[in-house]
Amino acid sequence: MSSAVTVFAASSSIAPAETGRLLNPDEFEAALRAIGASRYHNLHPFHRLLHGGRLNQDQVRAWALNRYCYQAMIPIKDASIVARMEDASLRRIWRQRLVDHDGEAEGDGGIERWLKLTDSLGFSRAYVVAARGILPATRFAVEAYVHFVRERSLLEAIASSLTELFAPIIISERVAGMLAAYDFVSKDTLTYFDKRMTQAPRDAEFALAYVTAHAVTPSLQAQVLGALRFKCDVLWSQLDALHHAYVDPGLPPPGAWTPGGETTA
Amino acid sequence: MSSAVTVFAASSSIAPAETGRLLNPDEFEAALRAIGASRYHNLHPFHRLLHGGRLNQDQVRAWALNRYCYQAMIPIKDASIVARMEDASLRRIWRQRLVDHDGEAEGDGGIERWLKLTDSLGFSRAYVVAARGILPATRFAVEAYVHFVRERSLLEAIASSLTELFAPIIISERVAGMLAAYDFVSKDTLTYFDKRMTQAPRDAEFALAYVTAHAVTPSLQAQVLGALRFKCDVLWSQLDALHHAYVDPGLPPPGAWTPGGETTA
Repeated sequence: MSSAVTVFAASSSIAPAETGRLLNPDEFEAALRAIGASRYHNLHPFHRLLHGGRLNQDQVRAWALNRYCYQAMIPIKDASIVARMEDASLRRIWRQRLVDHDGEAEGDGGIERWLKLTDSLGFSRAYVVAARGILPATRFAVEAYVHFVRERSLLEAIASSLTELFAPIIISERVAGMLAAYDFVSKDTLTYFDKRMTQAPRDAEFALAYVTAHAVTPSLQAQVLGALRFKCDVLWSQLDALHHAYVDPGLPPPGAWTPGGETTA
Repeated sequence: MSSAVTVFAASSSIAPAETGRLLNPDEFEAALRAIGASRYHNLHPFHRLLHGGRLNQDQVRAWALNRYCYQAMIPIKDASIVARMEDASLRRIWRQRLVDHDGEAEGDGGIERWLKLTDSLGFSRAYVVAARGILPATRFAVEAYVHFVRERSLLEAIASSLTELFAPIIISERVAGMLAAYDFVSKDTLTYFDKRMTQAPRDAEFALAYVTAHAVTPSLQAQVLGALRFKCDVLWSQLDALHHAYVDPGLPPPGAWTPGGETTA
């Protein structure tokens, strides 16, 4: 019980069934993919409503506003990982993620592309960037992710990025569904996802090779599987909070953005 | 944007209206109590269902199981605060909170009293203590609280305990309501709350005097108000997650305890 993170480690890290023998690379990848098949947030009801066109504009707004906080934190998370890498060749590879999200110059990069989406939904950039009105559960989940990559082993930090193995599925579902369903969303406002269709598989391939090479004991493999489960929880709990606040029963917590509410700073 | 915590500080710390003049002690206390009156979790629908006797036994179980994680973290949070105090007289006072929660010996203290409640609801201690089955949102909120008291100023860390100003109200409502409504809850299993009825006001009085004496600028007063708002978010988001998972729509996230599910290790 030396820290809060340790107190609750058991619940997200190691299932009893995972403490047995060393899995071979194919079995290990299958175990990782099985986690995605049961826990990735494409299975969440909110995602199905979103890409199925069954949300109203305010519900899509709430999603884009909250998801911005996650996007804004990604390069901070990745810089935290780079800061823990002692090998320059590894740092060079992971550094590309910073370029992808922060761009080469003002007006470029993944965060900027996400802001094009929130622009199109009527939010001012000042309002979005100040993170006013976001759900506390979004903030807590996002901060948990940053703390995780800073406090756990480098292997676990890298493993927590493995949800990108499953990203192409959700992105293709989401873009097609949203374009078909919402007249307030255009191909131009969804360019964030175009880029991710090539970036995510490249990143996931590297991370998968890394964890396969470095998880050389059953215990390390269990840590990797636990890290991926943790990351699925980070994504899932964000949709839980959106669902609760804006869909069913539709009770935004005190201080959170409300449908029809302020969209400018 | 130097850290995740900083990115999102604006949303929970400083409302524009708070950047004006220095409040006198009465005004400052009134501002703190106004936060409680609008954001404390006694206003949450789940609390009303709980103390109104409108939850079934499994829903009460889910609450007690998740709330254990919060209880178990309290002395870790308080030790983190003591570790930041340079003044021995301050450390001696705050140390009492460790005694209250951890007890003088095995079988004593607030955590032990909480386990009497989970015992009575049919959970094995091993299952509860391992924190298996708790909601990820519970874990993220609880960890956010620990990180907050470690990373923010000592003034903000102390201020985040000020929800205890409002605890006597919720405890009296809860105990009376639960005893009247649930035949599976007895006075004996609720002894945790008896103790808190005297401990919380004593602790809150000290913390209120401390923040009143030390928040000597409008900006520091705003930090204190922000810390209390943050702490209300920590408590509220835990009930949001319980409500979503076990009441409406009743969708526990993957890996979480399900009604009728496992209650032993």
